Amino acid sequence: MSDALDLEALVTRYLNTVAAGNAAAVAALYAEDATLEDPVGGGEVHIGRQAIEGFYKAVEGAEVKAELLTFRSGGHEAAFVFALTVAGAMRIEPIEVMTFNDAGLVTSMKAYWGPENVTQI
Amino acid sequence: MSDALDLEALVTRYLNTVAAGNAAAVAALYAEDATLEDPVGGGEVHIGRQAIEGFYKAVEGAEVKAELLTFRSGGHEAAFVFALTVAGAMRIEPIEVMTFNDAGLVTSMKAYWGPENVTQI
Repeated sequence: MSDALDLEALVTRYLNTVAAGNAAAVAALYAEDATLEDPVGGGEVHIGRQAIEGFYKAVEGAEVKAELLTFRSGGHEAAFVFALTVAGAMRIEPIEVMTFNDAGLVTSMKAYWGPENVTQI
Repeated sequence: MSDALDLEALVTRYLNTVAAGNAAAVAALYAEDATLEDPVGGGEVHIGRQAIEGFYKAVEGAEVKAELLTFRSGGHEAAFVFALTVAGAMRIEPIEVMTFNDAGLVTSMKAYWGPENVTQI
Protein backbone atom coordinates (compact mmCIF):
# COMPACT_ATOMS: atom_id res chain seq x y z
CA MET A 1 0.00 0.00 0.00
CA SER A 2 1.43 3.38 -0.95
CA ASP A 3 -0.14 6.38 0.64
CA ALA A 4 1.20 9.72 -0.54
CA LEU A 5 -1.39 11.70 1.42
CA ASP A 6 -0.75 12.53 5.06
CA LEU A 7 -4.30 11.90 6.20
CA GLU A 8 -3.62 12.81 9.83
CA ALA A 9 -2.35 16.23 8.70
CA LEU A 10 -5.47 16.66 6.52
CA VAL A 11 -7.76 15.72 9.41
CA THR A 12 -5.91 18.10 11.74
CA ARG A 13 -6.29 20.89 9.20
CA TYR A 14 -9.99 20.08 8.88
CA LEU A 15 -10.51 20.25 12.67
CA ASN A 16 -8.55 23.52 12.91
CA THR A 17 -10.64 24.98 10.08
CA VAL A 18 -13.89 23.92 11.76
CA ALA A 19 -12.66 25.56 14.97
CA ALA A 20 -11.79 28.76 13.07
CA GLY A 21 -15.48 28.99 12.24
CA ASN A 22 -15.64 30.03 8.57
CA ALA A 23 -18.14 27.82 6.72
CA ALA A 24 -16.77 28.57 3.24
CA ALA A 25 -13.24 27.69 4.38
CA VAL A 26 -14.44 24.33 5.75
CA ALA A 27 -16.44 23.61 2.58
CA ALA A 28 -13.33 24.33 0.50
CA LEU A 29 -11.70 21.26 2.06
CA TYR A 30 -14.41 19.11 0.44
CA ALA A 31 -14.54 17.94 -3.17
CA GLU A 32 -17.20 19.55 -5.39
CA ASP A 33 -19.39 16.41 -5.33
CA ALA A 34 -18.67 15.35 -1.74
CA THR A 35 -21.27 13.97 0.66
CA LEU A 36 -21.73 14.72 4.35
CA GLU A 37 -23.87 12.80 6.86
CA ASP A 38 -23.84 14.29 10.36
CA PRO A 39 -25.15 12.61 12.38
CA VAL A 40 -25.27 9.21 10.67
CA GLY A 41 -28.85 7.95 10.89
CA GLY A 42 -30.18 11.48 11.20
CA GLY A 43 -31.98 11.09 7.91
CA GLU A 44 -30.18 13.78 5.93
CA VAL A 45 -27.20 13.53 3.60
CA HIS A 46 -25.78 16.82 2.31
CA ILE A 47 -24.56 16.47 -1.27
CA GLY A 48 -22.16 18.89 -2.94
CA ARG A 49 -19.93 21.67 -1.65
CA GLN A 50 -22.69 24.26 -1.58
CA ALA A 51 -24.97 22.15 0.62
CA ILE A 52 -21.97 21.32 2.80
CA GLU A 53 -21.20 25.02 3.27
CA GLY A 54 -24.82 25.48 4.32
CA PHE A 55 -24.39 22.77 6.94
CA TYR A 56 -21.33 24.48 8.45
CA LYS A 57 -23.06 27.91 8.35
CA ALA A 58 -25.20 26.62 11.20
CA VAL A 59 -22.23 26.63 13.56
CA GLU A 60 -20.45 29.65 12.10
CA GLY A 61 -19.69 32.24 14.72
CA ALA A 62 -19.81 29.85 17.67
CA GLU A 63 -16.65 29.65 19.74
CA VAL A 64 -15.43 26.15 18.94
CA LYS A 65 -12.41 24.15 20.04
CA ALA A 66 -11.54 20.86 18.36
CA GLU A 67 -9.16 18.22 19.65
CA LEU A 68 -8.14 15.05 17.83
CA LEU A 69 -8.22 12.15 20.32
CA THR A 70 -7.72 8.94 18.33
CA PHE A 71 -6.69 8.66 14.68
CA ARG A 72 -6.67 5.63 12.35
CA SER A 73 -6.27 5.41 8.60
CA GLY A 74 -5.91 3.07 5.68
CA GLY A 75 -5.70 3.76 1.97
CA HIS A 76 -7.50 7.05 1.30
CA GLU A 77 -9.76 6.72 4.35
CA ALA A 78 -9.51 7.95 7.92
CA ALA A 79 -11.50 7.20 11.08
CA PHE A 80 -11.02 9.31 14.17
CA VAL A 81 -12.40 10.27 17.55
CA PHE A 82 -12.36 13.96 18.41
CA ALA A 83 -13.81 16.36 20.93
CA LEU A 84 -15.63 19.52 19.96
CA THR A 85 -16.15 22.09 22.70
CA VAL A 86 -18.73 24.75 21.88
CA ALA A 87 -18.78 28.10 23.69
CA GLY A 88 -16.96 26.48 26.63
CA ALA A 89 -20.30 24.97 27.63
CA MET A 90 -20.89 21.80 25.64
CA ARG A 91 -18.57 18.96 24.70
CA ILE A 92 -19.35 16.49 21.89
CA GLU A 93 -17.18 13.46 21.13
CA PRO A 94 -18.03 11.97 17.73
CA ILE A 95 -16.30 9.32 15.67
CA GLU A 96 -15.93 10.51 12.09
CA VAL A 97 -15.05 8.58 8.96
CA MET A 98 -13.70 10.45 5.94
CA THR A 99 -12.62 9.45 2.46
CA PHE A 100 -10.26 11.57 0.39
CA ASN A 101 -9.45 11.95 -3.30
CA ASP A 102 -5.92 12.04 -4.70
CA ALA A 103 -5.86 15.83 -4.26
CA GLY A 104 -6.51 15.45 -0.53
CA LEU A 105 -10.05 16.84 -0.69
CA VAL A 106 -12.72 15.14 1.41
CA THR A 107 -15.07 13.09 -0.78
CA SER A 108 -17.29 11.82 2.04
CA MET A 109 -17.73 12.48 5.73
CA LYS A 110 -19.85 10.54 8.18
CA ALA A 111 -20.16 11.58 11.83
CA TYR A 112 -21.28 8.99 14.40
CA TRP A 113 -22.66 10.53 17.58
CA GLY A 114 -25.90 10.99 19.47
CA PRO A 115 -27.30 13.01 22.36
CA GLU A 116 -25.61 10.52 24.72
CA ASN A 117 -22.21 11.80 23.50
CA VAL A 118 -22.93 15.42 24.42
CA THR A 119 -22.04 16.67 27.87
CA GLN A 120 -22.59 20.04 29.50
CA ILE A 121 -19.36 21.32 31.02
CA MET B 1 -35.10 8.17 14.10
CA SER B 2 -36.33 4.83 15.39
CA ASP B 3 -33.75 2.21 16.12
CA ALA B 4 -35.09 -1.12 17.31
CA LEU B 5 -31.66 -2.76 17.25
CA ASP B 6 -29.39 -2.45 20.28
CA LEU B 7 -26.20 -1.97 18.26
CA GLU B 8 -23.95 -1.70 21.31
CA ALA B 9 -25.21 -5.11 22.48
CA LEU B 10 -24.57 -6.54 18.99
CA VAL B 11 -21.05 -5.11 18.91
CA THR B 12 -20.34 -6.47 22.39
CA ARG B 13 -21.56 -9.91 21.31
CA TYR B 14 -19.35 -9.69 18.22
CA LEU B 15 -16.26 -8.83 20.29
CA ASN B 16 -17.01 -11.62 22.78
CA THR B 17 -17.44 -14.07 19.91
CA VAL B 18 -14.14 -12.99 18.34
CA ALA B 19 -12.47 -13.49 21.73
CA ALA B 20 -14.02 -16.96 22.06
CA GLY B 21 -12.07 -17.88 18.95
CA ASN B 22 -14.46 -19.95 16.81
CA ALA B 23 -14.37 -18.68 13.22
CA ALA B 24 -17.70 -20.23 12.22
CA ALA B 25 -19.40 -18.61 15.22
CA VAL B 26 -18.03 -15.19 14.25
CA ALA B 27 -19.02 -15.66 10.59
CA ALA B 28 -22.57 -16.56 11.72
CA LEU B 29 -22.94 -12.98 13.00
CA TYR B 30 -22.51 -11.75 9.41
CA ALA B 31 -25.17 -11.69 6.69
CA GLU B 32 -24.74 -14.19 3.84
CA ASP B 33 -23.59 -11.48 1.39
CA ALA B 34 -21.65 -9.34 3.89
CA THR B 35 -18.31 -7.68 3.14
CA LEU B 36 -15.26 -7.37 5.37
CA GLU B 37 -12.24 -5.12 4.86
CA ASP B 38 -9.55 -5.50 7.54
CA PRO B 39 -7.42 -3.49 7.40
CA VAL B 40 -8.99 -0.77 5.26
CA GLY B 41 -6.55 0.02 2.48
CA GLY B 42 -4.98 -3.41 2.73
CA GLY B 43 -6.16 -4.20 -0.76
CA GLU B 44 -8.46 -7.11 0.05
CA VAL B 45 -12.22 -7.16 0.63
CA HIS B 46 -13.68 -10.48 1.78
CA ILE B 47 -17.12 -11.02 0.29
CA GLY B 48 -19.67 -13.49 1.64
CA ARG B 49 -19.92 -15.47 4.86
CA GLN B 50 -17.63 -18.27 3.66
CA ALA B 51 -14.78 -15.91 2.81
CA ILE B 52 -15.36 -14.11 6.10
CA GLU B 53 -15.09 -17.40 8.03
CA GLY B 54 -11.81 -18.00 6.23
CA PHE B 55 -10.56 -14.61 7.42
CA TYR B 56 -11.35 -15.41 11.06
CA LYS B 57 -9.81 -18.90 10.74
CA ALA B 58 -6.45 -17.14 10.63
CA VAL B 59 -6.78 -16.09 14.26
CA GLU B 60 -8.67 -19.17 15.48
CA GLY B 61 -6.97 -20.79 18.42
CA ALA B 62 -5.08 -17.70 19.55
CA GLU B 63 -5.78 -16.51 23.07
CA VAL B 64 -7.64 -13.27 22.44
CA LYS B 65 -9.17 -10.67 24.73
CA ALA B 66 -11.38 -7.93 23.35
CA GLU B 67 -12.42 -4.74 25.11
CA LEU B 68 -14.82 -2.10 23.78
CA LEU B 69 -13.34 1.35 24.47
CA THR B 70 -15.53 3.89 22.65
CA PHE B 71 -18.87 3.25 21.00
CA ARG B 72 -20.95 5.46 18.67
CA SER B 73 -23.95 4.63 16.52
CA GLY B 74 -26.60 6.07 14.26
CA GLY B 75 -29.31 4.37 12.24
CA HIS B 76 -28.15 0.84 11.47
CA GLU B 77 -24.45 1.74 11.69
CA ALA B 78 -21.91 1.63 14.48
CA ALA B 79 -18.37 2.98 14.84
CA PHE B 80 -16.21 1.93 17.75
CA VAL B 81 -12.70 1.81 19.17
CA PHE B 82 -11.65 -1.44 20.80
CA ALA B 83 -8.55 -3.19 22.05
CA LEU B 84 -7.60 -6.69 21.03
CA THR B 85 -4.96 -8.43 23.13
CA VAL B 86 -3.45 -11.51 21.52
CA ALA B 87 -1.69 -14.18 23.58
CA GLY B 88 -1.05 -11.59 26.29
CA ALA B 89 1.78 -10.28 24.12
CA MET B 90 0.37 -7.91 21.52
CA ARG B 91 -2.26 -5.19 21.75
CA ILE B 92 -4.05 -3.74 18.72
CA GLU B 93 -6.46 -0.80 18.92
CA PRO B 94 -8.53 -0.47 15.74
CA ILE B 95 -11.50 1.68 14.91
CA GLU B 96 -14.19 -0.43 13.25
CA VAL B 97 -17.28 0.62 11.35
CA MET B 98 -20.14 -1.86 10.95
CA THR B 99 -23.50 -1.76 9.21
CA PHE B 100 -26.34 -4.08 10.19
CA ASN B 101 -29.50 -5.39 8.55
CA ASP B 102 -32.89 -5.43 10.23
CA ALA B 103 -32.15 -8.90 11.63
CA GLY B 104 -29.09 -7.57 13.44
CA LEU B 105 -26.61 -9.35 11.17
CA VAL B 106 -23.48 -7.49 10.11
CA THR B 107 -23.70 -6.46 6.43
CA SER B 108 -20.32 -4.73 6.27
CA MET B 109 -17.28 -4.36 8.48
CA LYS B 110 -14.32 -2.08 7.95
CA ALA B 111 -11.36 -2.05 10.34
CA TYR B 112 -9.07 0.98 10.42
CA TRP B 113 -5.65 0.27 11.88
CA GLY B 114 -2.01 -0.06 10.89
CA PRO B 115 1.29 -1.29 12.28
CA GLU B 116 1.52 1.96 14.29
CA ASN B 117 -1.53 0.81 16.32
CA VAL B 118 0.08 -2.45 17.42
CA THR B 119 2.11 -2.53 20.63
CA GLN B 120 4.10 -5.33 22.22
CA ILE B 121 3.15 -5.72 25.88
